[in-house]
Formats: sequence, C-alpha cells, structure tokens
Amino acid sequence: MTTATRLQGIFSPVLTPFNADSTPDPVRFVKHCRWLLDQDVGLAAFGTNSEANSMSVGEKRKLLDALLEAGLPPSRMMPGTGACALPDAIELTKRAVQAGCAGVLMLPPFYYKGVSDEGLYRAFATVIDAVADSRLRIYLYHIPPVSQIPITRGLIARLLKAYPGAIAGMKDSSGDWNNTKAMLEEFQPQGFDVFAGSENFLLANLRGGGAGCITATGNVNPAAIVQLFKTWKNQDADAQQAKLDATRAAFAKFPMIPAMKAAIAWKSGRADWCTVRPPLVELNSEQQFALQASLDAVGFTVPNAASLA
Amino acid sequence: MTTATRLQGIFSPVLTPFNADSTPDPVRFVKHCRWLLDQDVGLAAFGTNSEANSMSVGEKRKLLDALLEAGLPPSRMMPGTGACALPDAIELTKRAVQAGCAGVLMLPPFYYKGVSDEGLYRAFATVIDAVADSRLRIYLYHIPPVSQIPITRGLIARLLKAYPGAIAGMKDSSGDWNNTKAMLEEFQPQGFDVFAGSENFLLANLRGGGAGCITATGNVNPAAIVQLFKTWKNQDADAQQAKLDATRAAFAKFPMIPAMKAAIAWKSGRADWCTVRPPLVELNSEQQFALQASLDAVGFTVPNAASLA
Repeated sequence: MTTATRLQGIFSPVLTPFNADSTPDPVRFVKHCRWLLDQDVGLAAFGTNSEANSMSVGEKRKLLDALLEAGLPPSRMMPGTGACALPDAIELTKRAVQAGCAGVLMLPPFYYKGVSDEGLYRAFATVIDAVADSRLRIYLYHIPPVSQIPITRGLIARLLKAYPGAIAGMKDSSGDWNNTKAMLEEFQPQGFDVFAGSENFLLANLRGGGAGCITATGNVNPAAIVQLFKTWKNQDADAQQAKLDATRAAFAKFPMIPAMKAAIAWKSGRADWCTVRPPLVELNSEQQFALQASLDAVGFTVPNAASLA
Repeated sequence: MTTATRLQGIFSPVLTPFNADSTPDPVRFVKHCRWLLDQDVGLAAFGTNSEANSMSVGEKRKLLDALLEAGLPPSRMMPGTGACALPDAIELTKRAVQAGCAGVLMLPPFYYKGVSDEGLYRAFATVIDAVADSRLRIYLYHIPPVSQIPITRGLIARLLKAYPGAIAGMKDSSGDWNNTKAMLEEFQPQGFDVFAGSENFLLANLRGGGAGCITATGNVNPAAIVQLFKTWKNQDADAQQAKLDATRAAFAKFPMIPAMKAAIAWKSGRADWCTVRPPLVELNSEQQFALQASLDAVGFTVPNAASLA
C-alpha cells in the first residue's frame, strides 16, 4: 500500500433516498453525493445510516453504478460491502474494487452471535481471497451496538499480518473512546488508519494520530465537520468540537436516520426524503416539529439545500 | 385458511451440506431431505441451523429448485424466507409460494436493533402485500437469542387481525417456556399454530394444544422425536421426553451446527459433511472425539446413515 492511496478526512454513510413506493431513487442519491463531495465529504455509501442492509445486493449495485455513470470520483468512495452471506459480500466488494473505489467498509457477518475470532478471520479472509485484487483496501467496521459482533484487537492483528495490503484501517463505532484509543496506539503506527465512528471523537482521534471520521451527521452538517478536520490544530478546535457535539445532540434526541432524512426534507422542501424502509419508521409530525425546534436552537442550516430536492 | 392446509408435527431446519470449496451441495441436500421425509420430518429448509443467512438468495433458490426437481413434496416444506432486506424476503417468499410450499418461516429484518413493533409490522405487511398470493402461509420466527428482534404478542395480534389468512403460526425459539405458554393460550385458539423451537418443549407444547416443534436436532434424531409426537398421549410420554432431552444435551455441549454436521459425517462416513461456512467453524479433532463419546453414552444411532453420504 502506498501512502498516496491512504484515505483520510470526513466520510459519510450516505443516506439513501427512497421513492414513495420504497424503491431507491438514484437521481436524488447522485445529487446528495455530489453535494457531499462539494463540501469535501467522502462517500461511505451503503453504511448503517444508509439503510444498506435493508437493500438487496442488486439495488446497491445499481446505486453504485449511478454514481459512476454520473462521473463521481471512485477515489472518494468507500462503499459498505459486508454482509451475512459471504457470496453477497464478495459480489459487491468485487464490483467496488473493479470500479476503482478507494476502499470498502466491511461489516462482519452479523446473524450468528458469539462467534469466534477464528470464524471472523475466515470470513474476511474468504472475501479477500475471492476478490483477489491488489487494489482492495478494506476498512473493518466495528459497530457492536448494532452488529453485536465486535472486531477485536486480536482479530485485527491477525488480519494485518496475513493481509497487510488489503487491511487498510477501520471505522470504530463502538462509542467507546478507550477502544478507539487502543486502536490508535496499537495499529495506527502500522499504517492502519483509524476513523472515529462519529464526529464526537473527531478531535480526540486526530490528536491521537487518527485519519478522520466516518459519521452519520456528515449527511447534514458536513461543512462544520470538515472545517474541524482542516483546522484541528487551531486554537478554536475545542470550541469547534463543542459546536459539532451540540448539533449532533440536537439530532440524537430522535431516531437518527429518520431525523436526518426529515431535516433534509424540511430544508430541501422535498417531502419524500422522509421515506425510510421497514423496519425503520419515519418521524411523526410531532417529532418533526420537535426536531425542527431542536435544530433551530443550535442554528442548524443546510447550504444549497435546494440542490437536494 | 382451511383445516386441511394447517401444518403440524416435527419439522427440521435442514442442515445445508457444503462442498470443500464452500458451495452448497444440492445432491447431498436432496438426500438429506429425502431421509428426513422418510422419517416423517418436514422440511424447514433455510433456518438458523441451515446457515441460511450465510447463503445468498440465489443459492437458496437453487437448493429449493433441487428439491422440487427431485420430486420432493412442497406440501411438506416450510422454507425460511426472512431477510434484512425486504426485496430478498419478497423474492424468496414468492418463489416458495409459487412452488406450492405449505408455509414459510419468516425472520424479521434483524440488522437494526431496538426497532418498533410499528416498523416490524410494516416489514411483514410489505412482504405479504408484495407476494399478494392467497396461498401464502407465514410462520413468524421468534428467536431473540440470535436475531435480537423479538416478535411480541402485540405484533402478532395486529398481524393476525390484518392478515388472518397469511399469518399461520410461529416458531418460538426464545427458549422461554413462559413465552410459548402465553402464545398457546392467547393465539393457538385462533388457529395460529404454535411450534416449539426445540424438542425440549415438545411434550409441554402438545399438552398445551400446540402444533409440534421445529427443531435443529430433527436433523440427527428424527425418529425418536416423531415417535413422541405420534404417541404423546401414551403413558411413556414423559420417559420419551427425558430421552429426547438427553440426546439433545449430548449435542448441546458443543456448538450445535458443527456438532450435528460432525455427527452426520461420522455416521455416514462422508467427511465433507463437517464443512460449515464462516463465521462458523467446524469442530476440531478433540471436540469430534468428545462428541462421539457424548453421543455413544446416550446410545445415539443414525438409521440408514449410508444414504446421507
């Protein structure tokens, strides 16, 4: 792996716009991705906040194709490609690598609980061996509150040793700073890039030598998060961090995915941005008004919101 | 729903035989299914113990096609068709219904945790509305230890009211007899057939008016389990139940799926029956010997084992 190919900065698990009939809308998806790129946010499409696991592999392939056909740069893409079924993970990972995506964000298989590190090692190794492409760069996705399947330090060490080229880094969505800190100390010096799982830990992660963050709220508050990434050595960094935290907290009073979609619908004037797929449920009217008040209170704005409609 | 179409008895989440390269082996799959049917065990193919979520929809379709092409009766099939992505659930459910399968066993979407009953209701309703076939009979799959997504009494009541024809029953794999008992009391009298999730609760379930059980160990101990189902009113029923429990306990000392596969490999002489897909791991030699001793101690036998090779 050369230094030139290493990703850093702010990425967002891109929200997936659905039509009223619940099919993905590639047009708004491309618009949203372009809007993110314009603000220097990279595209971690098909993450948890993208409702990626609520979509079939075929639907995700089509959305990725739409981005490529629109001319968006794969060098700024880190699509999520992990799945319970390894053939699904292999298919989407292959497609991403062949398209030139700079990396992929990979969940472990998450149906069976309490599985061994040996089993998880085999899962990742199976995908890497099947993709068989030296361009593959995997960011391991550690999100035990949702997946229930932790990616342990022992597993990372073993994977890094066996596949030093393919294992590029991780997203730590444990919500546990002590875990992120341990990863930074043990693995970042080996060229394993640690991304915090939310901007709450962005400044701490950068101070610890980390690569940036991959964060849900990158979808709605991109400029301010990118600003901290670019100026984290400035004197106002802690003040910037506090402001990011306040905006995130304004969203986090509500179910996060429906709340972010409601905020985009509100600011863009495009009501179908509220649509989520089951088992998620959109905010009800009362929640929408409360969200708007919560966001107004922290001075939330969406620049160029009309371009998202 | 007419009484004639209601399923009862013993079903097994059919173990999926894999080749050394980890592809499913339809030949041994058909043999195993035929062996189960010969012993009056119905085919809940694509369950948890089938490693169903470790297979793509395409792989499952091919295995189902293999059963149909081999002339096995769809009237004895209740394939698992639930998935995180509703398009996947819809595709496999449609195929099963069109093939004439007597029922489908349906997991809720299981990636997002802590979702609402409203969201789960919409998930099942979406599948039912999309399949749009009066032959559809759904058995709800309640397995919170693995899926982490419980199917509550409130959700069942709402689904039964909205879709009395399509909602046919459930498999209760909570491992909590009080839950099964509550389901039997509240829903079984409405024609909602409650299957226990293991033979440990078979006798209790039948005494409570339940329909039978859908059990992993149906793969390896079918005759004795079916015998209890057929003779549960006899005086020796409790003694039969105790014997079933002892055999199950002999397996349960080990990871269940690899242990059942190892037992079939041992008795049939076909070593590749041991193969599991990541993230599962096959038993090591020490575990295999310990399993064999454990099974010998309870007098475990596999009738006509050569037919599984």
